[in-house]
Amino acid sequence: MTQDKHLIEEKIASEEILKGRFLHAFRDTVRLPDGGTATREYVVHPGAVMMIPILEDGRLVMERQYRYPMGRVMVEFPAGKLDGPEDVLVCAKRELLEETGYTAAEWVRAGQLHPVISYSTEFIDIWFCRGLTKSQAKLDDEEFLEVFTATPQQVFDWCRDGTITDSKTLIGAFWLQNILAGAWKLDWKP
Amino acid sequence: MTQDKHLIEEKIASEEILKGRFLHAFRDTVRLPDGGTATREYVVHPGAVMMIPILEDGRLVMERQYRYPMGRVMVEFPAGKLDGPEDVLVCAKRELLEETGYTAAEWVRAGQLHPVISYSTEFIDIWFCRGLTKSQAKLDDEEFLEVFTATPQQVFDWCRDGTITDSKTLIGAFWLQNILAGAWKLDWKP
Repeated sequence: MTQDKHLIEEKIASEEILKGRFLHAFRDTVRLPDGGTATREYVVHPGAVMMIPILEDGRLVMERQYRYPMGRVMVEFPAGKLDGPEDVLVCAKRELLEETGYTAAEWVRAGQLHPVISYSTEFIDIWFCRGLTKSQAKLDDEEFLEVFTATPQQVFDWCRDGTITDSKTLIGAFWLQNILAGAWKLDWKP
Repeated sequence: MTQDKHLIEEKIASEEILKGRFLHAFRDTVRLPDGGTATREYVVHPGAVMMIPILEDGRLVMERQYRYPMGRVMVEFPAGKLDGPEDVLVCAKRELLEETGYTAAEWVRAGQLHPVISYSTEFIDIWFCRGLTKSQAKLDDEEFLEVFTATPQQVFDWCRDGTITDSKTLIGAFWLQNILAGAWKLDWKP
């Protein structure tokens, strides 16, 4: 937008600074709004999807997983990274089945979040699902996690008391709270 | 916790893979719960603090800032990175003044969030402040942003309609909503 010219930075040059097995990072030189230059370093990420699975009785399907950079087990909604240019709903269904063993009859997209706008291109699409049927989880090698269920009130209490600090899960709970209160609507599709 | 032995990964080796001007990344080899090994790549971050400043009339102080990895201007609560081992409240006061020109008479810590638990050690401390007095912002070189105010209802609407997708700001709104509703309490200190 023209009215944002006093804020916008423009790319002058881009250099790959890390091609790891998982992390892929760049350092760009940018033109600042005042005509000066600066460098911006960031991770390029394919994007991800978070699923908030609601059981018949209103309980949520959740996970406990050890997160190495945190050095501890975290309570989370199921989520997974897009496999290249994969459709987000295809990814959501695949990851829900792989991680939890559930398939869902109905899905609805709530919104999107950006976990770390200062140094990663990652987005996370937020999807709710219901009409759940349980089969067998098929975890990836190198993936270890525990699936459990919780009531919405438990989830909200854990957001307040610090049991849940994972950003995507906090935001999933924010959506859930507003949907259950009737303040925000979802357009469910079979 | 002993009961989490089936989830915990243990460090075997650690290698620095990127020492950029901003990004600092490592690749660790870990022992998996089943005795196998895997690699984990992650960014090491000093941590940050987000401020939710409430004006006398209930409006919130917010920012519009171009975020290069997103390629667009984002609506956010003020926030800043810790300067090494800096105390979070000292950082919050410094960043609020630098970015917005406000000083606050009362502060309270709400909680903490982890923006990206799979590949960064970053935490963001969440603080509310009030009793605001305006003076002059002192932006860093290379920092361009616009300060504005919004009502809580505007903020909640923007969370629903996708105007706000920044994770820390969504979580700040979640806290704000529960505090204004009386569901979550803050212990204000002068």
